[in-house]
Amino acid sequence: MNIRIINIGDELLIGQVINSNAAVMSEMLLKNGFFVDRTVVTGDKAADIYQEIESALRQVDAVIVTGGLGPTKDDITKKVICDYFHTTLRLDQPTYDFVSRLLASRGMAMTETNKTQAMVPQGADILPNPLGTAPGLWLEEQGKVLISLPGVPYEMKGLMQEEVIPRLQRRFMPGEHYLCRVVQTIGIGESFLSDLLEPWELSLPPHISLAYLPDGGIIRLRLTGSGPDEARLAREVDAEVERLCALAGDYVFARKDQTMTEVVADLLKERQQTLATAESCTGGFIAHQITSMPGCSAYYKGSVVSYANEAKQQILHVSADDLASMGAVSHEVVEQMAQHARELFQTDYAVATSGIAGPDGGSPEKPVGTVWMAVASARGVSSRLCHFGPAGGRMRVVGRATNTVMEMLRREIIAH
Amino acid sequence: MNIRIINIGDELLIGQVINSNAAVMSEMLLKNGFFVDRTVVTGDKAADIYQEIESALRQVDAVIVTGGLGPTKDDITKKVICDYFHTTLRLDQPTYDFVSRLLASRGMAMTETNKTQAMVPQGADILPNPLGTAPGLWLEEQGKVLISLPGVPYEMKGLMQEEVIPRLQRRFMPGEHYLCRVVQTIGIGESFLSDLLEPWELSLPPHISLAYLPDGGIIRLRLTGSGPDEARLAREVDAEVERLCALAGDYVFARKDQTMTEVVADLLKERQQTLATAESCTGGFIAHQITSMPGCSAYYKGSVVSYANEAKQQILHVSADDLASMGAVSHEVVEQMAQHARELFQTDYAVATSGIAGPDGGSPEKPVGTVWMAVASARGVSSRLCHFGPAGGRMRVVGRATNTVMEMLRREIIAH
Repeated sequence: MNIRIINIGDELLIGQVINSNAAVMSEMLLKNGFFVDRTVVTGDKAADIYQEIESALRQVDAVIVTGGLGPTKDDITKKVICDYFHTTLRLDQPTYDFVSRLLASRGMAMTETNKTQAMVPQGADILPNPLGTAPGLWLEEQGKVLISLPGVPYEMKGLMQEEVIPRLQRRFMPGEHYLCRVVQTIGIGESFLSDLLEPWELSLPPHISLAYLPDGGIIRLRLTGSGPDEARLAREVDAEVERLCALAGDYVFARKDQTMTEVVADLLKERQQTLATAESCTGGFIAHQITSMPGCSAYYKGSVVSYANEAKQQILHVSADDLASMGAVSHEVVEQMAQHARELFQTDYAVATSGIAGPDGGSPEKPVGTVWMAVASARGVSSRLCHFGPAGGRMRVVGRATNTVMEMLRREIIAH
Repeated sequence: MNIRIINIGDELLIGQVINSNAAVMSEMLLKNGFFVDRTVVTGDKAADIYQEIESALRQVDAVIVTGGLGPTKDDITKKVICDYFHTTLRLDQPTYDFVSRLLASRGMAMTETNKTQAMVPQGADILPNPLGTAPGLWLEEQGKVLISLPGVPYEMKGLMQEEVIPRLQRRFMPGEHYLCRVVQTIGIGESFLSDLLEPWELSLPPHISLAYLPDGGIIRLRLTGSGPDEARLAREVDAEVERLCALAGDYVFARKDQTMTEVVADLLKERQQTLATAESCTGGFIAHQITSMPGCSAYYKGSVVSYANEAKQQILHVSADDLASMGAVSHEVVEQMAQHARELFQTDYAVATSGIAGPDGGSPEKPVGTVWMAVASARGVSSRLCHFGPAGGRMRVVGRATNTVMEMLRREIIAH
């Protein structure tokens, strides 16, 4: 079955906000066996929204609309839905009570504007949204489904996970099972990996397929299978995962859909070991990646973001001579950063980065994209130089450096 | 006049790549007076692409298609264009010569596959692409224009700037001018702000409209106007901006479309002052936000991400007694973090955060979402407690705390 996504919002249409909801929703749906045929962005104009919903419901089985459910005047999705289904709004008491309690817990009173959040089209099923004031809506007519969700990314995501996907499965795929496994590699380019895997890929049965999803030096390989017998499907897909991993060998760093940082976090937790970071060019991004995961205080002690050379010297005790003679982007400096961060935070491991993220600061000897990375442990310190190049801007260099230094750390952890 | 954007690519449709091209193109077009009515993402399927082009050319004056121009077999835009315009491909000699030279300069020979890059639909104007092997195409029929561009972001951007926008301006000579102003508030909820602004909003003339764009505790208010007289329009919209700012008063922190961190960065650069950060619950996110901006080394010295209490004590010299008696999430601790970070990095200002990002670690006295924030300067230290609540997860708490502490810093800077 096919699904259409319609994201509503002038802010998306004029380019003030990049439409990340479409990508998140597509991926969630695909992992559960639903194919998105197209995604459309429209502005906050009733006629455009109406036209897109009408044309989508002619072409596909289900349409998911995001946005236009908030309490302000430019939020008009509910009005369009009422028009389309020839119905009117009613007050939904459970939603009204929930919004009142939510506002009260934030020390706010219910206003007239907030009351409109509890108005829903007659005939719509309410999808409760514990994370915000606008509930999701599910409407059905002549075998077609229209779903309306708030545009706030975490509210949309929660509703997709808890309400929309289970309901779509019950409604459209009873008896059909869908399975998705992810294997991830680092250190090998897409075309080389593709050459390595080609004979195996060509031998895959028709109900199992492979996709390459490269990003930031990492390639996610997604195996998806479908069939009526869930247990048999799982055995078949898992056997293909084994064949894939045997071929990709040492390049494989994860058999789950985890970030590199999550893989390292699991290893540290498992071994009850601790980590600190010392960041120059990554500027706090590694710390942020780690601390965005709940429970990180079990293994993560902190970071010194030594952006200025004085901070490298005074807080991380990097030798002033080395800084002057070798420069901040050197193995001498990055190794001292890692070693001294490990001592300062009294951890089992420390990682450090020092490089040129650009666009300025490059030189013929150390062009933009040059990064030194180091890992320190009780066994000593090791470092590595990478040239990530200038293309793609600062954040691409920072992301590549983060993945690379965490892969160095992962290898150091599992080697002992 | 209206323009439709169609971005082609399976990688966009399955959520592997976020569609940033649509946002970049929309913004470039709007700034030059062209309104995008809708953006659509389709996969690499000829029938879908054909259908979208056909439906778009019925509804708008010009359609810009990106993607599907490369040499691999899933790139089919040119074939669809030939179908649609009942024409065939021809070899374009200047493009052939350019591609040959480009490949030669990279040490590569022309292959059969590369030759297809020089094949273009009969009747198409060629838009030269100095940055890649696929040129842009411009086709016209019955007063409607179809433009085809490569999907590689920097190639698309170059062609939009150099070829597409100047040609659109010459072709359609818009008598309408568009103008967009952004005003941003913090510290007031959307529905309260909406109640405050309602009488003024209702009095807006029909050619000026207002949109609310809330995110992370900040509300961006966007005023958009259109009209035949550019100077008059600017005067009218600017007058409405003044009225808006008078009503929203102290909640306004920016009259430009900048992040809070960018606003603070501009103030620091302007005053040649410096900043350091000490982060507990924000875990390096503030440092990351600052260091993702080029040129930040002029004012930013670094951060201590003191996630563990030992780090607060040993690196930031927070009193062990206060940590034990008041807890890490207290004004005593966060103020010491800010003051000592300022001394450690020898900066004019330092900001600090300490709170409970969740989902664990909350208590009845200090529930998830409780954050203490502090700003230290030569004039002393001030702190503030906020309850951001648990909804939305860690990153919402971190984002709200970042915006709030930067707003405290902004007020501290401009007060002196």
